[in-house]
Amino acid sequence: MTEWINKRKVLVVGLGLMGGSYAMTLKRLGFEVWAIDKSKESIEYAIENKIIDKGDFRDNEELISGCDCIIMAVYPSGIVKWIEDNKDKFKKHIFITDVTGVKSAIVTKIQDILGPDYEFIASHPMAGRETNGVANANDKMFRDANFIVVYTDKNTSEGIRWCENLGRILGFNRISHLTPEEHDDIIAYVSQLTHCIAVSLMNCDGAQDMVSYTGDSFRDLTRIAKINENMWTELFFMNKDRLIKRMDSFIKEITDMRDLIVREDAENLKEKMRISTARRKKFDEK
Amino acid sequence: MTEWINKRKVLVVGLGLMGGSYAMTLKRLGFEVWAIDKSKESIEYAIENKIIDKGDFRDNEELISGCDCIIMAVYPSGIVKWIEDNKDKFKKHIFITDVTGVKSAIVTKIQDILGPDYEFIASHPMAGRETNGVANANDKMFRDANFIVVYTDKNTSEGIRWCENLGRILGFNRISHLTPEEHDDIIAYVSQLTHCIAVSLMNCDGAQDMVSYTGDSFRDLTRIAKINENMWTELFFMNKDRLIKRMDSFIKEITDMRDLIVREDAENLKEKMRISTARRKKFDEK
Repeated sequence: MTEWINKRKVLVVGLGLMGGSYAMTLKRLGFEVWAIDKSKESIEYAIENKIIDKGDFRDNEELISGCDCIIMAVYPSGIVKWIEDNKDKFKKHIFITDVTGVKSAIVTKIQDILGPDYEFIASHPMAGRETNGVANANDKMFRDANFIVVYTDKNTSEGIRWCENLGRILGFNRISHLTPEEHDDIIAYVSQLTHCIAVSLMNCDGAQDMVSYTGDSFRDLTRIAKINENMWTELFFMNKDRLIKRMDSFIKEITDMRDLIVREDAENLKEKMRISTARRKKFDEK
Repeated sequence: MTEWINKRKVLVVGLGLMGGSYAMTLKRLGFEVWAIDKSKESIEYAIENKIIDKGDFRDNEELISGCDCIIMAVYPSGIVKWIEDNKDKFKKHIFITDVTGVKSAIVTKIQDILGPDYEFIASHPMAGRETNGVANANDKMFRDANFIVVYTDKNTSEGIRWCENLGRILGFNRISHLTPEEHDDIIAYVSQLTHCIAVSLMNCDGAQDMVSYTGDSFRDLTRIAKINENMWTELFFMNKDRLIKRMDSFIKEITDMRDLIVREDAENLKEKMRISTARRKKFDEK
């Protein structure tokens, strides 16, 4: 992990739940952690609570030019512009990563803006909570989660190793590698579609009156119906084509199941349940 | 709880996961617990493991005529026939309940068969696991769960109280009361629809290759995709009209969301997420 010994000063841009949790963990591990966030209150909270060492609510040149690596933890729509506006202040050859939930729409743009002098290695921490803001930051939420390094042919093996090691030292359980296209295709399904399902299930007629009668299954399926509408709207729109393909596939699948129930076609209905049971069992083995 | 002191000998018919868990808990509490199950192996296992005191894989007349109350824990399709076949052996004025997940299709039939000499008070323990059989029985799964007493105008206040107390001594967290129609309408939504969603999500194209990339949300939403296909096919068919209504409402809701994403209608999409967030928060308060 020599890259990390050489990258002592970490700048976190965007100090929300995820940026705050990165900062808290890295500071605990002994790094010098700086942050920039447009909320003065968040910066003050983070300094008072020893989540960061230094911070500013403006694009402070000293922080931007002094740091050895940057973690972009702002909303998806803000990341490209911030890098464009500030890259001339960066120290040469620094590594930059992000936490964004979609990749195709941003990675090539950022790498084109940066050129050969700085390296952007995208990554996606597959962790989250139904809460917002640095005040909810915690360094335990990475423990059983997956960390995906999203590489392109612009990345060096040194940059990729640096990013893998970031995932490791944050405490993620598993590090994997995907291209931006592979990542967005999978995320459309395992993350974006599941959030759309939870929201839709919660919004059906009469859902609000049923607290006394629900079992674990309803609670599990709607936990993520508590959702940050601004961030997820950006994520859905930035990955629209892939998400719509997944939604159509799911709507077709549940409509098929509906039709089997209408026709009381027990044999084909049971076959669907046998398939889902076999597939889900494989998940428990890993 | 005088009814329970007077009903010392409990017969459990059907010794699967639920019947086994009832038996185990009631025996621990000091009742004399008997069981009938067509699997000789299950009866032997339960006797060896002190889950029951006595049992038989045939419809043993001594057990049926000697017990003070009966818990029907067989599959939905089997319950009416078993009562029809065996009611002449019942001791007069015993209480009978069940664990079935649908009610309208069975409760009136059973009460008509029994007439005034025996009382059937339906109930639904809203607990379960993704496992089957008496070997997986455990007496902890009721702790945070809801127990629904499903009453009709044929029930006496003594019978209803007996059934409420069964839920309490089994350790359920909350006892509530619904008519068969109310019960089936709610269950179609909070239980049956959620299982259809989980199965359909798990069965979409490519799901099986994604173990390494999933977060908690996908795992939560598909946990119940491991499903007993024989029992759930019966439950779905016996509550078909109500389930189809709920499925149609959900399919409409997620199709609306899909169309908002296609049109990039951010304002209406955010409104849907604000509604789901507010509704889900209410669940956490209870």
